[in-house]
Order: sequence, then C-alpha cells, then structure tokens
Amino acid sequence: MPDTNDAAAKAAVKEANAAFYRAFSAGDAAAMRDLWAQRAPIACLHPMAQALVGREAVLESFGKLLRQAPRFELRCEQPVVSLLGEVAFVTCYEGAGGEPAHLAATNVFVLEDGNWRMVHHHAGPLSSPIMRAPDRSLVN
Amino acid sequence: MPDTNDAAAKAAVKEANAAFYRAFSAGDAAAMRDLWAQRAPIACLHPMAQALVGREAVLESFGKLLRQAPRFELRCEQPVVSLLGEVAFVTCYEGAGGEPAHLAATNVFVLEDGNWRMVHHHAGPLSSPIMRAPDRSLVN
Repeated sequence: MPDTNDAAAKAAVKEANAAFYRAFSAGDAAAMRDLWAQRAPIACLHPMAQALVGREAVLESFGKLLRQAPRFELRCEQPVVSLLGEVAFVTCYEGAGGEPAHLAATNVFVLEDGNWRMVHHHAGPLSSPIMRAPDRSLVN
Repeated sequence: MPDTNDAAAKAAVKEANAAFYRAFSAGDAAAMRDLWAQRAPIACLHPMAQALVGREAVLESFGKLLRQAPRFELRCEQPVVSLLGEVAFVTCYEGAGGEPAHLAATNVFVLEDGNWRMVHHHAGPLSSPIMRAPDRSLVN
C-alpha cells in the first residue's frame, strides 16, 4: 500500500493543483506545458468532450484554450487531496471569475523528477452552481 | 518515476475496471463494496453531482444506486489504461443498455493487498452520444 498520509506531499500536491489554475487563468502556455508530466502517460476529459490521450493532444487542446479571448480566471474551490504514494488525485470545483462554481473536476498528479506533475484533468458540469463559501478546503 | 509500461499490470487494471461495470450492471452491492479500496482514501463524482469523499459516503451512494429500479446495464467502452506504478487511471465512455455512450468517465485504482481496487470514480455527460464502435480499446 502506498503512503497516504504524508502531509508535506499532500501540501505539495495542493500547490501543484493551484498552479494549474493559475496557469490557466494567466493564459500562460509555457507554465501549462511545464506542469504536465514529461514521461508519464497523460490524458484529459474537458467538459462534455471526448477523451484526449497523450501529451501532444492534451497540450494542443490547452494551447487553444489559453489563446481564446476573452481570458478569464478559473477558480479552484474546496480541493480535496488524496495521496497514493507517488501519485495523488484531487477533487475540486471550478468557477469562472466571480461566478459560483459550475464544474466539478478531478486532477491526477505523479511525482516525476521530484516535482508533482499533472497526468490527468477531468472537468464536468454541476447540476447547480455552488455558491462561494468560506474556505472549506480539505486534505483527507 | 513509477513503472508505466507493465503489460500484466495494465491488463489487471482493465479487468478491475470491467468488474466495476459488471457489479453496477448486476446490482451486486457486495461486489461493489469489495472492489473499492479498503484503506486508501476514496472519492466519487457522480454525473452533475457534488463530490463524495470517504468510503462511507461513496459506498452509501452506490448502495442507493444499485437498489434503484429498474436496473440497467452500464456498458464501458474504449477504456484507456494509464499505469503509474501501483496506481492507475482509466478513461472510458459509459452507455446504458443498448444506447450510445452518453457519459465520459475517469476511474482511479490502487494496488492494495495485491488487488487493483478503485479509489475514485468520476463520470459526466458528453455533449453528444458516442455511437457504439467496433472494439477500439487502447492500452497506452
């Protein structure tokens, strides 16, 4: 059984997760490329869309998204980090700008060369938006 | 970097993923309980719904789903297994009975006591259903 309780690792995963939303919100394509795994297999399920598999397909899709105008802040709310040794997954909600969160997301990370890098992003719609709450971030 | 190429491990993950859809389709609550991790942290994002975190919340939700009538076959199509050592994630599409797949899913597994057990299930709607195709299963 992989280690599931390393508090420092969980904090590092939470930071890697936050870095994804910062790169998206800033439209920073270089940061976005760097935060995805270099060698581990990667995939992505954008909201309502078919699966993208492989680094080229995933990064091309984010390149397009980041070039779209107008740019908007993609907020991450209530991240819950689940650690599984050198892999972790995060569940969270996503909201655009000041709007209530309208998406639920799963982000998967792997420890690669000492850095937590993203291997999978899956986001999909919520039946009703989640009003912004005081910080209820959880690390389980 | 965890091992990402072990073909036998990938096949075992694919089988664990298939077992989830068999248990769901059969309404087999005992099999569903057994296929989720016993000790690793678990979570679930049902379509359009808020996050469930922890074994009790997740299994309670599947217990309710499995008792719902009428029962229906939940098919898994085009599973893609991404192996990350003792953790793996699968992307696939889900369809009910003979209908085209209407959901995209991410399933995460961990090797626990020698068995690949589920730690996370996330399913969400597709913008358009995917017609049933000849077997194009991939193991990347």
